[in-house]
Amino acid sequence: MLIVKKFGGSSVRDKERIMNVARRCEKDYRAGNRVVVVLSAMGDTTDDLIAKAHDINPNAPKREMDMLLSIGEQESVALMAMALNSLGVPAISLNAFQVGMHTTSAYSAARFKRVDTDRLVHELDAGKVVIVTGFQGVNKYDDVTTLGRGGSDTTAVALAATLHADKCEIFTDVDGVYTADPRIVKNARKLKEISYDEMLEMATLGAQVLHNRSVEMAKKYGVTLVVRSSLNESEGTLVREVNNVEKMLVSGVACDKNAARIALIGVKNEPGVAFKIFDELSRKNINVDMILQSVGRDDTKDISFTVDQEEAKNAVEVLKENRERLTIQKIEDEVNVAKLSVVGAGMQSNSGVATKMFEALYDVGVNIRMISTSEIRITVLIDLEDTDRAMRAVHDKFLPDED
Amino acid sequence: MLIVKKFGGSSVRDKERIMNVARRCEKDYRAGNRVVVVLSAMGDTTDDLIAKAHDINPNAPKREMDMLLSIGEQESVALMAMALNSLGVPAISLNAFQVGMHTTSAYSAARFKRVDTDRLVHELDAGKVVIVTGFQGVNKYDDVTTLGRGGSDTTAVALAATLHADKCEIFTDVDGVYTADPRIVKNARKLKEISYDEMLEMATLGAQVLHNRSVEMAKKYGVTLVVRSSLNESEGTLVREVNNVEKMLVSGVACDKNAARIALIGVKNEPGVAFKIFDELSRKNINVDMILQSVGRDDTKDISFTVDQEEAKNAVEVLKENRERLTIQKIEDEVNVAKLSVVGAGMQSNSGVATKMFEALYDVGVNIRMISTSEIRITVLIDLEDTDRAMRAVHDKFLPDED
Repeated sequence: MLIVKKFGGSSVRDKERIMNVARRCEKDYRAGNRVVVVLSAMGDTTDDLIAKAHDINPNAPKREMDMLLSIGEQESVALMAMALNSLGVPAISLNAFQVGMHTTSAYSAARFKRVDTDRLVHELDAGKVVIVTGFQGVNKYDDVTTLGRGGSDTTAVALAATLHADKCEIFTDVDGVYTADPRIVKNARKLKEISYDEMLEMATLGAQVLHNRSVEMAKKYGVTLVVRSSLNESEGTLVREVNNVEKMLVSGVACDKNAARIALIGVKNEPGVAFKIFDELSRKNINVDMILQSVGRDDTKDISFTVDQEEAKNAVEVLKENRERLTIQKIEDEVNVAKLSVVGAGMQSNSGVATKMFEALYDVGVNIRMISTSEIRITVLIDLEDTDRAMRAVHDKFLPDED
Repeated sequence: MLIVKKFGGSSVRDKERIMNVARRCEKDYRAGNRVVVVLSAMGDTTDDLIAKAHDINPNAPKREMDMLLSIGEQESVALMAMALNSLGVPAISLNAFQVGMHTTSAYSAARFKRVDTDRLVHELDAGKVVIVTGFQGVNKYDDVTTLGRGGSDTTAVALAATLHADKCEIFTDVDGVYTADPRIVKNARKLKEISYDEMLEMATLGAQVLHNRSVEMAKKYGVTLVVRSSLNESEGTLVREVNNVEKMLVSGVACDKNAARIALIGVKNEPGVAFKIFDELSRKNINVDMILQSVGRDDTKDISFTVDQEEAKNAVEVLKENRERLTIQKIEDEVNVAKLSVVGAGMQSNSGVATKMFEALYDVGVNIRMISTSEIRITVLIDLEDTDRAMRAVHDKFLPDED
């Protein structure tokens, strides 16, 4: 079996953790598997390097930032190869140049174009565990690129896809994907498996176990992902195309407390106003999520929408600057809101899920501010203070204790 | 003018030093020169990485050590590119892969085979200062190699040779090559220039301003070296082929306190014994320097030689193990000795230099234990406690104050 295993920075932050990871890889190797390991930089290395760079030049060229940051992963892969060798396991570390992990040229936000297999296969055939730098690539100029936050997950999936790996294990602090955040919902359960689409919805909604890009890529190439804990041997959660006839109605409940709501009061009720408003925001790269439009007084209407909290200030400024042209009488914003969602592939063929969710919220007296839906998700905007209570109520409704 | 400038680890150990180097490079760039900069790893980075590796695996594979150590220089070149950019100077960092610094495969002790110029010339033509990682290369497997201690000097000379640079400046803690160590000999003078061969003899003898390999390479390709201080604007010392009709009789006085003397008493006086002794030592990679053989009592002889102090213990053990076969009656070793040398290309055509040196030592009552000579060097072994006194006396004899 060919297994790609990815470990994040906290899993290799010191000697003990490195030896722990080495022993896990040794186990798979001794069982006769071909093993490829993808690593992030140790602990806070990347943040430390960013601080060092900013101290010298706060506007450092992105090309040089990538050149600098890429050393973090090279350090961890070399040390891991040494650790495996100390256990008597032949191992070799490879950086993006050596593998041939070709990306686009966009420094700090590169995307994979092509991954060469010659060197990888050569080393695997020679009986070695191959340890590859996550997060980085090389562009057509032979320059180092990085993939942005969460890039190591994407590296692992790209390697698994290229090598037709049997599975791609992503090791994290948690031991799988849960039906809800176990810190809030006591009886949350670990899912045995979840579909790519459900995982994407969960990830977007704040259950940040996997980076979205890696899930998208896994879906595209049919790579079976396993989300596991690096600290115990628990089986984890499979992420793959689930073709059960009876799909789970709801796989999980997720919440996102990083939302802000902006309300535009008294916008002139004429064609094209909404377009102008959201066009203005998108030009400033502000992502708008939920949108609600309601009839106002006289010949005006009210438009509300949500953005990530860190973009709220910026959004309000942009709108204020263009207030006259956009015919906005008043702008309100509030950050004491949260998005609560139920996600489930079974929803597609089942009506009544929304009703059931609204009922659960009504039962505990939680007010719904806005609603948005996708094929496999229903999201409501609620007051921040209601979040935990609402989450438990919705989880109990859809995923009651099994015994 | 095309200038290659090399700065060691202490010259880039923190932000202040990095900015200082950046400003020096800026000056050359603004004056219209094409500038290539070679850097070592910051401060103690290399030693820190070695310690980290040894903690995980005291017998780490050399390939992985090189993979690990090479990140040190990549860090300093990226930060230097950022520093120059912050001064408004276009700059780009390149590692050994990107330049194409091809070496032999010997990890931790690689030698340059070929240096590509395409990328370097492309970036110089684009008006950029090019900053290259010292100390490292890439072998035919696309693996990272390192050149061993002092390797960054060699990188600088290799680049200067390949690019036909007008000069190669090596920046150090001292501001040039002196006629003797100024800490011991008060009236030591900085040399304006010195020949490659003299520099090689000086370097071997403990005046470790330049790494020998870099001087050998500079001689082979006719690269003009300049040894300068990174802390002041002083002119430094030129190292190049000196074709003066009147060569300086003596360019400098050097001493090496890292010597140990081993005496083998009562060795059987028969053919082949000396060969067997030194063959045994060379098999154990112990380098022998000065050798003296004297007639002993009866049919025996005494053989003395010097080795570096760290090899003395090892040498004695090897000889003890083979004592009977090598017919050695007694082995003595002492570390309280030092080698004192005068170096000068003018010696070749001038007799009497040795006599003059011995006279100087006699005048101050210093006993000579052993003598060895090359075409441009005379070395004597003396007691360690006599070193400073002897050095001053010899310096005064050959290089008296000019006024």
